[in-house]
Amino acid sequence: MRIELTLVGMGTGNPQHITQEGVQALRAADVILLPRKGEEKAALAAARLEVCRQVWPQGDGPRWAWFDMPYRHAASTTDAYRAEVQRWHDAIAQAWRDALCAALPQGGRVAMLVWGDPSIYDSTLRIAQRLAQRVPMTTRVVPGVSALQALAAAHAIALTEVSAPLLVTSARWLRENGWPEGIQTLAVMLDGEGVFQALSAPDVYIWWGAYLGMPQQLLCAGPLAAVGADIAALRRQARQQHGWIMDTYLLQRRMPNAPQE
Amino acid sequence: MRIELTLVGMGTGNPQHITQEGVQALRAADVILLPRKGEEKAALAAARLEVCRQVWPQGDGPRWAWFDMPYRHAASTTDAYRAEVQRWHDAIAQAWRDALCAALPQGGRVAMLVWGDPSIYDSTLRIAQRLAQRVPMTTRVVPGVSALQALAAAHAIALTEVSAPLLVTSARWLRENGWPEGIQTLAVMLDGEGVFQALSAPDVYIWWGAYLGMPQQLLCAGPLAAVGADIAALRRQARQQHGWIMDTYLLQRRMPNAPQE
Ligand SMILES: C[S@@+](CC[C@H](N)C(=O)[O-])C[C@H]1O[C@@H](n2cnc3c(N)ncnc32)[C@H](O)[C@@H]1O
Ligand SMILES: C[S@@+](CC[C@H](N)C(=O)[O-])C[C@H]1O[C@@H](n2cnc3c(N)ncnc32)[C@H](O)[C@@H]1O
Repeated sequence: MRIELTLVGMGTGNPQHITQEGVQALRAADVILLPRKGEEKAALAAARLEVCRQVWPQGDGPRWAWFDMPYRHAASTTDAYRAEVQRWHDAIAQAWRDALCAALPQGGRVAMLVWGDPSIYDSTLRIAQRLAQRVPMTTRVVPGVSALQALAAAHAIALTEVSAPLLVTSARWLRENGWPEGIQTLAVMLDGEGVFQALSAPDVYIWWGAYLGMPQQLLCAGPLAAVGADIAALRRQARQQHGWIMDTYLLQRRMPNAPQE
Repeated sequence: MRIELTLVGMGTGNPQHITQEGVQALRAADVILLPRKGEEKAALAAARLEVCRQVWPQGDGPRWAWFDMPYRHAASTTDAYRAEVQRWHDAIAQAWRDALCAALPQGGRVAMLVWGDPSIYDSTLRIAQRLAQRVPMTTRVVPGVSALQALAAAHAIALTEVSAPLLVTSARWLRENGWPEGIQTLAVMLDGEGVFQALSAPDVYIWWGAYLGMPQQLLCAGPLAAVGADIAALRRQARQQHGWIMDTYLLQRRMPNAPQE
């Protein structure tokens, strides 16, 4: 049994974010490996199926290999959290293996849809490395549009000013480390709590977006001091209405009307 | 005359990087606005035409609106450079306007192909803002795969470790400012000179890629101290062979075998 795994960046919820290379990789696969997810993530599972509906418009769809997503336990300390993530990734790799042994006992081509781009805050590649310890396999990655790009596109803004840097960061790192010296622009992902509200904001501008690429997309931009509370309220309402939220934002220290070029 | 401009992220040279949304936007356009470039960039112009060949496989291609790319003059000081870029962007916006007035005297839908993603180290959006001062128009952006993602995909690596940040930077900024405290991972673009060679390298790992997504793609990875000179030699040879080069790389301070999760 030999597996050729292709991880396909699917974009951020708009089924049209998929690239031609992604379409080809999906069509070339013997099976599509898909998680069965809990209720709260139903919208994300639906987005995956929507991509497939677009790739196989005739309904002559792919063969599926479903796996049950193992449960991740809570952990109180950072060490316990790290150990739990290790255990959890191992359990996922094992669930992939079981699903693939059942679907492809002789081996073959497997594709997986990865949210956004597989290289940005995603552990699918790390889980694939664990699978490779169990099964002879190769891994190929098809790049995709990430939430960063979806945010910039929705606002029609650049993420980088001429030759200046962009820090892509998790909200957790920003909360623990603060805004780094000498860097004007931050793109923040994985913000469960609204870390932007804790930043001292006199000269900070924010471009915020939720559900980017999806029908329920929300956008807001302005000086953080002026719109921060609005964004916090929008997030609360939206999370209540839809049961879940994914959002990201760009922060810039200088006002956007300052000379940029 | 009213223009609906759509900037379409085209990916990094592989015509299959284009998204479904990009394909739709190109097909919906009345004209495609394209630069006539000098000889040395012939490969990049060819990549644009290759995307179009894929979008219109029957040869029933789009209407083109060509413009001559204005010349940018050299500048010795930073201030002079900034002023020259302003003038140059203005001249480009004017060239767009002239081409569009000729092609679409009544106005209409215009699409442009932008290398990679339009939000990453690209001035097309800034030039569009200048055009908007001359012509009634709207601007829409279709996100695309950037060189960052193409690099990560080619090496099958993640750009971000769990919750840690990624600094996307130009080589110029890195040379002038050095490696920022507290940040382990850098993605470097726009490196004409090989700034990586000047970094003190005992514990730095590099993943390098040139011509990503193109048939002549080159990859190299390893401890910077061990492979830095090889990469410098590869770049020199490749630039000589092809007449031009585009390359980018990820730098990580810790060795990749250290625990990551
Ligand atoms: C686990 S990370 C995955 C990122 C993904 N690999 C990418 O390239 O965008 C999830 C985070 O990405 C961002 N995100 C993903 N999709 C989004 C969307 N449609 N709208 C807004 N933010 C999104 C949010 O910050 C979210 O917390
Ligand atoms: C002016 S910037 C444009 C970046 C583009 N907007 C993007 O999203 O990738 C050009 C730089 O991008 C990187 N780049 C673009 N295409 C590339 C490719 N095919 N291979 C390697 N690097 C590339 C190089 O660092 C190059 O100097």
